[in-house]
Amino acid sequence: MSGARNLSNALRRARVPRPRIVVRPALLQSPATTAIRTFTVSSTARADRQIKYTSDAYPNVKRDPNFGELTADDVAFFKELLGSQSAVVDGVTTDATDDIEPFNSDWMRKYRGHTRLVLKPQSTEEVSKVLKYCNDRKLAVVPQGGNTGLVGGSVPVFDEIVINTSRMNQIRSFDEASGVLVADAGVILEVADQYLAERNHLFPLDLGAKGSCHIGGNVATNAGGLRLLRYGSLHGNVLGLEAVLPDGTIVDSLSTLRKNNTGYDLKQLFIGAEGTIGLITKVAIICPPRPKAVNVAYFGLESFEQVQRAYREAKGQLSEILSAFELMDGRSQRLVHESTGNKYPLEGEYPFYCLVETSGSNAEHDMEKLESFLEHVLGEGIVADGVLAQDETQFQAIWRWREGITEALSHLGGTYKYDVSIPLSELYQLVEDCKQRLTEKGFVGDDDSFPVRAVVGYGHMGDSNLHLNVAVRQYNKEVEKAIEPWVYEWIQKRQGSISAEHGLGIAKREFIGYSQNETMVKLMKQLKALYDPNGIMNPYKYI
Amino acid sequence: MSGARNLSNALRRARVPRPRIVVRPALLQSPATTAIRTFTVSSTARADRQIKYTSDAYPNVKRDPNFGELTADDVAFFKELLGSQSAVVDGVTTDATDDIEPFNSDWMRKYRGHTRLVLKPQSTEEVSKVLKYCNDRKLAVVPQGGNTGLVGGSVPVFDEIVINTSRMNQIRSFDEASGVLVADAGVILEVADQYLAERNHLFPLDLGAKGSCHIGGNVATNAGGLRLLRYGSLHGNVLGLEAVLPDGTIVDSLSTLRKNNTGYDLKQLFIGAEGTIGLITKVAIICPPRPKAVNVAYFGLESFEQVQRAYREAKGQLSEILSAFELMDGRSQRLVHESTGNKYPLEGEYPFYCLVETSGSNAEHDMEKLESFLEHVLGEGIVADGVLAQDETQFQAIWRWREGITEALSHLGGTYKYDVSIPLSELYQLVEDCKQRLTEKGFVGDDDSFPVRAVVGYGHMGDSNLHLNVAVRQYNKEVEKAIEPWVYEWIQKRQGSISAEHGLGIAKREFIGYSQNETMVKLMKQLKALYDPNGIMNPYKYI
Repeated sequence: MSGARNLSNALRRARVPRPRIVVRPALLQSPATTAIRTFTVSSTARADRQIKYTSDAYPNVKRDPNFGELTADDVAFFKELLGSQSAVVDGVTTDATDDIEPFNSDWMRKYRGHTRLVLKPQSTEEVSKVLKYCNDRKLAVVPQGGNTGLVGGSVPVFDEIVINTSRMNQIRSFDEASGVLVADAGVILEVADQYLAERNHLFPLDLGAKGSCHIGGNVATNAGGLRLLRYGSLHGNVLGLEAVLPDGTIVDSLSTLRKNNTGYDLKQLFIGAEGTIGLITKVAIICPPRPKAVNVAYFGLESFEQVQRAYREAKGQLSEILSAFELMDGRSQRLVHESTGNKYPLEGEYPFYCLVETSGSNAEHDMEKLESFLEHVLGEGIVADGVLAQDETQFQAIWRWREGITEALSHLGGTYKYDVSIPLSELYQLVEDCKQRLTEKGFVGDDDSFPVRAVVGYGHMGDSNLHLNVAVRQYNKEVEKAIEPWVYEWIQKRQGSISAEHGLGIAKREFIGYSQNETMVKLMKQLKALYDPNGIMNPYKYI
Repeated sequence: MSGARNLSNALRRARVPRPRIVVRPALLQSPATTAIRTFTVSSTARADRQIKYTSDAYPNVKRDPNFGELTADDVAFFKELLGSQSAVVDGVTTDATDDIEPFNSDWMRKYRGHTRLVLKPQSTEEVSKVLKYCNDRKLAVVPQGGNTGLVGGSVPVFDEIVINTSRMNQIRSFDEASGVLVADAGVILEVADQYLAERNHLFPLDLGAKGSCHIGGNVATNAGGLRLLRYGSLHGNVLGLEAVLPDGTIVDSLSTLRKNNTGYDLKQLFIGAEGTIGLITKVAIICPPRPKAVNVAYFGLESFEQVQRAYREAKGQLSEILSAFELMDGRSQRLVHESTGNKYPLEGEYPFYCLVETSGSNAEHDMEKLESFLEHVLGEGIVADGVLAQDETQFQAIWRWREGITEALSHLGGTYKYDVSIPLSELYQLVEDCKQRLTEKGFVGDDDSFPVRAVVGYGHMGDSNLHLNVAVRQYNKEVEKAIEPWVYEWIQKRQGSISAEHGLGIAKREFIGYSQNETMVKLMKQLKALYDPNGIMNPYKYI
């Protein structure tokens, strides 16, 4: 087949029936993903539904009566301060509902606030003045980047002012010798990565929302993504931060040094704090050289045991060039197939699929390692079938079977999303158990009378990070009650995390006790009180 | 030559005069380093000198009058609490000077305290009770691990109680699927690494003092070491910690999950806090698979410009298998030669030397990459001469030329050590400028009338981390005044760090302002006050 790399030589050496590994034309029919992938949900099936207000969905959450109420004077102050017309979306003194709505609700159409004011400062000094004013007036605020979060952390609940970072979007510097990039919080992740690509470097974070999310938001939520396995977490890669505290204090910890042991590493507190103690304005991050060779393979496997074996083999054999090991269950791939209309990469269907990516500096060496790995996992019967991308189009097409899951799910109505860490051996058991539970309760079915369409599992196998998704025809409190807190108890028993990478937001706030003990929660509250005594930063969320 | 890998084929392809690259017999004459390297200084030239008390060397530092004074009742309490005889070294009610002295002073013989009590708790609960008691009685304490620090951070200044972690030395668990090790703070780094070696994994930190230092101390000081370039910092690799706050609160943040976004990442505050807000009792750390192939090469180079070029080439060509790139100047290698009596690895002397290490999963691929790199840097004249280790003995011998510098220096009298981060292009300029300054002042010379023997530079090129060492015949205030604060001003101008990896301790405490602005220092003090309101944890140090 044209373009298909012939693995027969490698397989001939294995004394086992030779399994089939080919690249199917189907892959070539899939459109390559566009340069900037976005999370915009365009399903017409959704336009007829209003998003429920978070304040209605969470009736126990009450507006803090200590917070000030926005006045025309406040708006006048902000307009004067920020100058530019485009910097203030004013729903206080004008009717700007349509302009404000995108800032009030999330892309999943699950959370919706009542804000009447959106501010888009363009500099750290402006952020400082905005926050100082808000703190003095006790006006609550919500920092917002690309608004691609999954736990309602970046949209208001009541009338909190949205401080959006989209106008702070400059790349400040890049040093090729050290690989250190300094950029504003509002730079879009993919823009940063493309800038780095032109300089033979790579942003050490990649995720489905890269076309929309801001790097400030990535840091604020300690985003994990697709290649944490290879490049490590933001706690290791972020070298410096600039942030503004609620009282307007500018925290300049924007070091570009790989090593700097001069005092407490305070910037770490902002990484993953979801904008509850300050607003991140600039990021310094160390970026690795862009790999010269990247390969991706896609496997079908008969059981989760085989997935675990395949992962162990990949870790051992691909070692330093392994850059992603993603798990997708059969149901998730069927959803992508139904949503995109693309033919499956493999003939026949399997209960499990894996995506294995390698990134290295020598294409020949990498291919040799990968072929030897493939020979082994096919020869041993660990993997039932597989394809190996031969060009950029196929590469993108294969990744689309992983990255397209979120979008495919978004077309179905609503999704209850659980993003959890569990010991590897039990990773998929949660999906089975959840499915069984919801089926027993009579919630799951193919026709529209059942609230649940599908229970789906996928995630970052290499990080022991599962995404359990329950796709519903519409958000349904009965279904939610059947899942929660059952799912959190299940995770707690295994000492897992109820939020591996998505964070807490409003969705998981009340469940923090399942992953953190009382002492930790007490210490967190103490810290919140220290930095934000008026509680104005992203209230009703996190802790 | 027997054992020497012939690079002539590779070099034949380069159309340049073929430089010489051989493995010299000298390497084979060097004794292989023993499994456990220690920092013990055995020079007889030193035994006749008493170490000066830190309280005399720093007359401005006064004992905090709010601290309690140890009584026989206190000692009785601790003896009762800790049970075992070996857990309490009592210099309060008995004369135990000789037993206490090793805990009172550091291995550099530069810092010396007046403690009369050393406690060695064996469990977290014991640490908790000790600290609670001390906090209630306002008795100051110094957490101490292997006492291998370089800034006087782990020894008392006055009569602070030493809490030594050596009896908390159990490895708690290791999970092969995830690579996560959980161990007590007092486990010696090399013991942990050997335990992991038997399980085909590697501790993601390595440093000269590995035979003595404790992993709790490594984390408390955010140790960097030899392979940070490859495996990243402890802020990324430490997944969980258990620590005890001054009031006895046990902070159980001992997560073994790679991803856990449930609240502020408080454990990060203890990493690099040098025991000033709490005492680390357990560590959970992610460990990479042990590389199957490790190679090391040693180069002579004619200038620092060539060193920079060699580093750029190594980064580009060796990429994912590059695990160390160390810089040593000619003077540092001469000191090792004089101290060990070993023959130089290369014929002739060079102003600069580099050690390049690769670690990978495929010996053949790694050697091919390394040979192609060597061919290039030799062919282009970037490197003047080089050797490549062919076996474990040679591997250890080459590393000894880098790791032996500290010990070689320790035989000379005293050393003023500066551990700094500077932009790569100016990394070595600091050594030149310092040498010129001290020479102009008439301090540098070969005979005993000059206080300064040598100004030496070496370090972790890959991390932009230089160790500037001024070897003196004895510690000398005039020399110190000529270096400080000049050296800190030099670094500040280049926005470097006055302490890249050694920390602040007492040595750098008053200079923190050269690397941190006023706001940062204020925030740090605020945090110290929050966690340690009585200031009993490692006082007189850090901030």
